[in-house]
Amino acid sequence: MVTRYLPILTWARKYNRETFSADLVAALIVTIMLIPQSLAYALLAGLPPEVGLYASIAPLLVYTLFGTSMTLAVGPVAVASLMTASAVGEIAARGTPEYLGTAIALALISGLMLIAMGIARLGFLANFLSHPVISGFITASAVLIAFGQLKNILGIQIEGHNLVEQVLDLSTNLPEADFTTFLIGVSVFAFLVWARRSLAPLLTRTGVSAPLSGSLSKAAPVVAVIASTLAVVVLGQHAQGVAIVGDIPRGLPRPALPNLDLELMNTLLFPALMIGVVGYVETISVAQTLAAKRRQRIDPDQELIALGAANIGSAISGGFPVTGGFSRSVVNFDAGAKTPAAGTFTAIGIALATAFFTPFLFFLPKATLAATIIVAVLSLIDIETIRRTWGYSKSDFTAMLGTIIGTLALGVEIGIAIGVMASLALFLSRTARPHVAIVGRIPGSEHYRNVKRHQVETTPGLLSIRVDESLYFPNARYLEDAVNAAVSADPNIRNVVLMCTAINYIDSSALESLEQINLRLEDAGIKLHLSEVKGPVLDRLERVDFLTNLSGKIFLSQYQADRYCIDSNADTSQPSQS
Amino acid sequence: MVTRYLPILTWARKYNRETFSADLVAALIVTIMLIPQSLAYALLAGLPPEVGLYASIAPLLVYTLFGTSMTLAVGPVAVASLMTASAVGEIAARGTPEYLGTAIALALISGLMLIAMGIARLGFLANFLSHPVISGFITASAVLIAFGQLKNILGIQIEGHNLVEQVLDLSTNLPEADFTTFLIGVSVFAFLVWARRSLAPLLTRTGVSAPLSGSLSKAAPVVAVIASTLAVVVLGQHAQGVAIVGDIPRGLPRPALPNLDLELMNTLLFPALMIGVVGYVETISVAQTLAAKRRQRIDPDQELIALGAANIGSAISGGFPVTGGFSRSVVNFDAGAKTPAAGTFTAIGIALATAFFTPFLFFLPKATLAATIIVAVLSLIDIETIRRTWGYSKSDFTAMLGTIIGTLALGVEIGIAIGVMASLALFLSRTARPHVAIVGRIPGSEHYRNVKRHQVETTPGLLSIRVDESLYFPNARYLEDAVNAAVSADPNIRNVVLMCTAINYIDSSALESLEQINLRLEDAGIKLHLSEVKGPVLDRLERVDFLTNLSGKIFLSQYQADRYCIDSNADTSQPSQS
Repeated sequence: MVTRYLPILTWARKYNRETFSADLVAALIVTIMLIPQSLAYALLAGLPPEVGLYASIAPLLVYTLFGTSMTLAVGPVAVASLMTASAVGEIAARGTPEYLGTAIALALISGLMLIAMGIARLGFLANFLSHPVISGFITASAVLIAFGQLKNILGIQIEGHNLVEQVLDLSTNLPEADFTTFLIGVSVFAFLVWARRSLAPLLTRTGVSAPLSGSLSKAAPVVAVIASTLAVVVLGQHAQGVAIVGDIPRGLPRPALPNLDLELMNTLLFPALMIGVVGYVETISVAQTLAAKRRQRIDPDQELIALGAANIGSAISGGFPVTGGFSRSVVNFDAGAKTPAAGTFTAIGIALATAFFTPFLFFLPKATLAATIIVAVLSLIDIETIRRTWGYSKSDFTAMLGTIIGTLALGVEIGIAIGVMASLALFLSRTARPHVAIVGRIPGSEHYRNVKRHQVETTPGLLSIRVDESLYFPNARYLEDAVNAAVSADPNIRNVVLMCTAINYIDSSALESLEQINLRLEDAGIKLHLSEVKGPVLDRLERVDFLTNLSGKIFLSQYQADRYCIDSNADTSQPSQS
Repeated sequence: MVTRYLPILTWARKYNRETFSADLVAALIVTIMLIPQSLAYALLAGLPPEVGLYASIAPLLVYTLFGTSMTLAVGPVAVASLMTASAVGEIAARGTPEYLGTAIALALISGLMLIAMGIARLGFLANFLSHPVISGFITASAVLIAFGQLKNILGIQIEGHNLVEQVLDLSTNLPEADFTTFLIGVSVFAFLVWARRSLAPLLTRTGVSAPLSGSLSKAAPVVAVIASTLAVVVLGQHAQGVAIVGDIPRGLPRPALPNLDLELMNTLLFPALMIGVVGYVETISVAQTLAAKRRQRIDPDQELIALGAANIGSAISGGFPVTGGFSRSVVNFDAGAKTPAAGTFTAIGIALATAFFTPFLFFLPKATLAATIIVAVLSLIDIETIRRTWGYSKSDFTAMLGTIIGTLALGVEIGIAIGVMASLALFLSRTARPHVAIVGRIPGSEHYRNVKRHQVETTPGLLSIRVDESLYFPNARYLEDAVNAAVSADPNIRNVVLMCTAINYIDSSALESLEQINLRLEDAGIKLHLSEVKGPVLDRLERVDFLTNLSGKIFLSQYQADRYCIDSNADTSQPSQS
């Protein structure tokens, strides 16, 4: 029981010198990668830079205790930072203590919700965010984030609640752009894009091993940070228009409980849920992908608890909402991390940096961080999935497009809500008008298929209908109409068999419809039979008087039903063989 | 085209003396029944009594033009009147011109929405109100209505937004009850209950034909109206505490367009939709039930237009929302109405009464009308359906109970919304965790069933899984887990066949899950096959590269898949027959 909620008790028992050194190496690489990322995502969330560092310490320590993934790295990520900025921006003005306090409260509430969902084993609810919705949302968020960072690259202000307003504001303020800032931003951007594409192959060619080249190339942002900081120092007077990070408080955060009043909590409930669930979906995808590569398993419900605890840890140490990040987890995995202890070592590394190195970041240009963000999020824009979804399913594509447009035009939370609603509405409307096939026997077999698609044999006087959907309230009347129409098309019909292979459930509304169909067919001298009724469905029908009132029989297989009707045809004085 | 939207053009052609006299007799009986009902439902809606009469004239005329049911009678009904009182009471105070104006506007907006839905052929949306939700809602409304009328029987005021507040208010104000009012109310109530149960049998025993006895007994409320009015006149001074109907304006309403400002329209949109849809569901159920008895058909989409037009007719003539009523339609049907012309004759009858007889209603006690309402709605309380739903499906029962409690505690519109949400949520949660069966062959057949329920034969090394649900985002990960669990239970498995009889759709999320399953099984040296894939599902899979990447094959039937695996077992050097 305790080990279920504290997976560390399981893996720590087998911890040895070998796993220790592997974890330590991985932690060193991840630490170097995380410092500029943490500063950048704090900037994206509209928070002071040190908050990004705080959110990369306690959450990692907490995840070590509660996490079931051996390689997941939690911390600030792009999408959650954007969602934080969006939610907090509704309540407080950037740069105020209220803004920071609200972001911290958001992490706390989100964490509490995730833990509650984990204890209630509600991890499956995350499945209601379908792949197309998640994919569309991440693509739209990446566009929003990249565009939003243009202001830091150009050294101007951009306001506006949606993309259209921001584009208009950008074009108005463009003449005020600072050239030195722009030069730094573009140079860093070009360097990072080059490093992402060509640095690892270059290092490999110079004799470095392939995995190490990959890891080293992830340190490119650190090089950019150092180089651009030096550039500002060297340029001196000439760079006075360049926005810099400035003074970062040295030392570690002191644990404190965030201020929470009821009204604020109420306002934050919906965004906290959205950030929590979206973060959880990202976390679980990354964790499952990496676990599968090493044939490990993760526990989705315990991951809810672990991510929730990590967010509470973030809040108590003055940080903002955190998530399991894709790129940092992959780097951790590739660098050879074996257990969540690597996260603890990373946390120690970032704590040391926070305690001692922050003065060196004073002259770091914000444009460098902005370029880091843009390069990171551009890889999230996934045109291939959009194209593939268009080809596979127009209704999935509709949900995806609704999410993208909703996110870009109305904001991140509404965008997701639109996507989920659209997915569900499209699914329900499909089940409301199910596919109905008249079936016949494939010659030489006991197998029955659609008369329109296969060469089949049908029995005169028998109508075999297969409804390809569970029978429930949205399609109950549709079934009545479908049977009526099929029966009225052929006056010779004396038996109707409803082939129930695809009927997984019959609710009360559909039961009433079936009773109506039975009565109407009986009035017209036609018997209604059912075939291939599934066990759970039949169990339920036996609870009411439907089976005693049914004019026909229940057959185990469609073949038996067909044989029965052929035999009863033979029994009648006038064979209706036509 | 014109005849589609104006069904009168079809039936009027065959109109003759015989149908005329049948319609006239039915209209006379319905008119007598409708006068007290119209006054009572106006009282229930919080409107002046004449408004109930107005709502029983124009809507009947309009329905004659547009309706497809030969026997449906439209007009004010109990549930729609309660919903009107609830919606209008939020906006204006009873007895004010604003209150009346809002009720009229509600009828107009509701009518416009219904017509729009009819033209867009959205009649199927009404199916989303499941039978348990409708049934629960009507039962809860009946309780609310009956309780609400106690104030008129006791001659006191009852305020409060929900049943609990009203019960408390009743107990506080009970000492102020007027004894004469109470006496009249209880007498009328007892008389009407007696008439409903025993009058028709009594008349039959005295030699009156059974159908005529039934119709005559429906006139009991008219007897109660006359008797109680006379009682108030005779009692004179002694009845001065009795609330009476008072002065009703003589003459017919003048057609006028209701005042509509945008803000009011906006506020009324949701209640208008609810009243329209609930009224439509009631209308269509009554119309379909009666049509089936005479083997007639109704057109559900045209009924939307007819009911919408009837509501607009009501609004223009100063009336409030109307619906096809159950009891009046049954009386119309039993009395022998043959065409909607009976409705026109009824409208003429009520118009004559409105023009000439209203002065006689001056001393009519409101308690009499209240008793009429209570007796009418008590028959709507349907304990049998509640009991039956409990026995058949706990999840349908949950939706029903949610509707009842929601309606009683939070109000009619929220109650219905809770019911619809609960139905959908319960359906989705069921599909999110589908029934999964491992299947084997019924000996001597080509039929495959659940190994846990049937005596079946299985092939060594082959795992045949049947998933009893369409594959879509809420259950995509569930499928991965189910396959993983089944495969890990038996290390000898070399083939997995997914039997797709119950899979009616595979969305993009589930497609990704299938690809994952395929890859993981392939890594473990296991082939994944599909059998009995439905045509529309296979068509879709052929659009992407899933089939080329699939490690196994697609089989027309499970039997063929089984044969193939048996043959491939025989081909291998070490037969794994155990």
